Amino acid sequence: MVSLPKKIEITEVGPRDGLQNEAGLIPTELKIQYINALLAAGVRKMEVTSFVSPRAIPQLADGEEVFKKITKPKDAWLFALVPNLKGLERALAAGVQDIAVFTAASETFNKKNINLGVKESLEVIRQVVREAKGKVRKVRGYISTAWVCPYEGNIQPKKVLPLIETLLDLGIEEISLGETIGAAAPLEIQKLLEQALKVTTVDHLALHFHDTRGTALANVWAALEMGFYKFDASSGGLGGCPYARGAAGNLATEDLLYALHRMGMITGIDLEKLSQASLLMGRALRKTLPSRYLSTVGK
Amino acid sequence: MVSLPKKIEITEVGPRDGLQNEAGLIPTELKIQYINALLAAGVRKMEVTSFVSPRAIPQLADGEEVFKKITKPKDAWLFALVPNLKGLERALAAGVQDIAVFTAASETFNKKNINLGVKESLEVIRQVVREAKGKVRKVRGYISTAWVCPYEGNIQPKKVLPLIETLLDLGIEEISLGETIGAAAPLEIQKLLEQALKVTTVDHLALHFHDTRGTALANVWAALEMGFYKFDASSGGLGGCPYARGAAGNLATEDLLYALHRMGMITGIDLEKLSQASLLMGRALRKTLPSRYLSTVGK
Repeated sequence: MVSLPKKIEITEVGPRDGLQNEAGLIPTELKIQYINALLAAGVRKMEVTSFVSPRAIPQLADGEEVFKKITKPKDAWLFALVPNLKGLERALAAGVQDIAVFTAASETFNKKNINLGVKESLEVIRQVVREAKGKVRKVRGYISTAWVCPYEGNIQPKKVLPLIETLLDLGIEEISLGETIGAAAPLEIQKLLEQALKVTTVDHLALHFHDTRGTALANVWAALEMGFYKFDASSGGLGGCPYARGAAGNLATEDLLYALHRMGMITGIDLEKLSQASLLMGRALRKTLPSRYLSTVGK
Repeated sequence: MVSLPKKIEITEVGPRDGLQNEAGLIPTELKIQYINALLAAGVRKMEVTSFVSPRAIPQLADGEEVFKKITKPKDAWLFALVPNLKGLERALAAGVQDIAVFTAASETFNKKNINLGVKESLEVIRQVVREAKGKVRKVRGYISTAWVCPYEGNIQPKKVLPLIETLLDLGIEEISLGETIGAAAPLEIQKLLEQALKVTTVDHLALHFHDTRGTALANVWAALEMGFYKFDASSGGLGGCPYARGAAGNLATEDLLYALHRMGMITGIDLEKLSQASLLMGRALRKTLPSRYLSTVGK
């Protein structure tokens, strides 16, 4: 029997990654209510919004207002996604203390997603991190398509490892590896993670799995067995990758919590309260959210 | 890295376990078309129907006709569920060669499900197996609620192990352990399986997981790591336990195939063809079936 981590850190990405792909504009007040409900459920790491161009993502154009009005527990890390110096400026002006930056292991995905090659995106991250120094508490780094790219197919670990090293060198403490399209299975997950442990430790890596084909919790289990204890998830399973149409996207926080709690692991999050936060958003969106667990709870 | 099984045996339960819970009567011809499509996809172990009382389960009252009219590849095991001697008689008259019998680890579940206590159900199985001797090829035994019961809660391994031993003593070669309500997580799965390996081998045990809370593939992975290679699944995720309302039930064969094939394992089943069989039934039922993988395929 393997030795499993006892305490799990979950980063809730529903308010940003989840809502970003919603077509209809969601009222700012509802977002605030939703985020506050997530915090009240015990979430202490959360991606709350993004300071990307409002023209690129109108859904998150209200980032300043959202950030200003949400409750801010002292022990909570409330990340805002910052794509560049302009975004950083807006984030800092709104009082943001924790930022997230992003790149992808796939050149094509990076170009289609943020219109920058991998190298260029690393240069932007370098600028942001340098400028943010002393002005923010924590920087989180995302590496999307760390296993599979919708354009390039399988991504080899040798493409991912140098990115991890570069982000670590920049002083980024936590790197979230994204299995962006929900295509990889446990063996692949473990293959990259074994390599990654040669350049860093489990303390510096979070895992961001998608449940497009039902593999997310299997991948979580495969990572837990290796000692990984940081996972991203989206309340209700909100959002996901627009390149996997009609399919579930992000691993639902409820499904993750259910399995972890069932195994006696500690997350600090109240599953029932979090489910209610998801249902609140689900009702507003008039959607049945994809979380499996949530479907056992009601509407 | 663990040593994983290479060749996986899947028992498709869609035509019986899947369709049994459908409210509207499905035309016999459609069932035959569906079963033949599953066989054409490469399925070689399947629960095709049941010879329970037509009054109890009207949906499967056409068991004789279904069995007679489906194609019967020589290398296929086509199981019919047989609840008692009367059912066996009907099955044999229809030309059935492979039968399945069932009980549950939970006394309460057994009583609510088949109106027999565990001991009484074992006595019925004993009669059926004795009578079937020399008249059938293979007998499969189900033990439902092997981990969790919707009425009694957690089921301890000590309740399950004697049942496994009893069924083995009766000459039943393959026992399918059911995680009937999709509530258990990998650690629990491994706990019972470790105990089970003290009384038998992986060759005699199949695993029947439900995906109600998204844990099914994680449980599959946990079992694969221990060398288990026999799994039950339902095409499209059809059916499931009526006690978990609104929720996904059976692990979808598509989701299982996707993950296994992705890891280089061999099932002999063509995922795309099997998906088409599910979509055929889904269209007829006017339902979006719960399989995650299937939602990436279309309608």
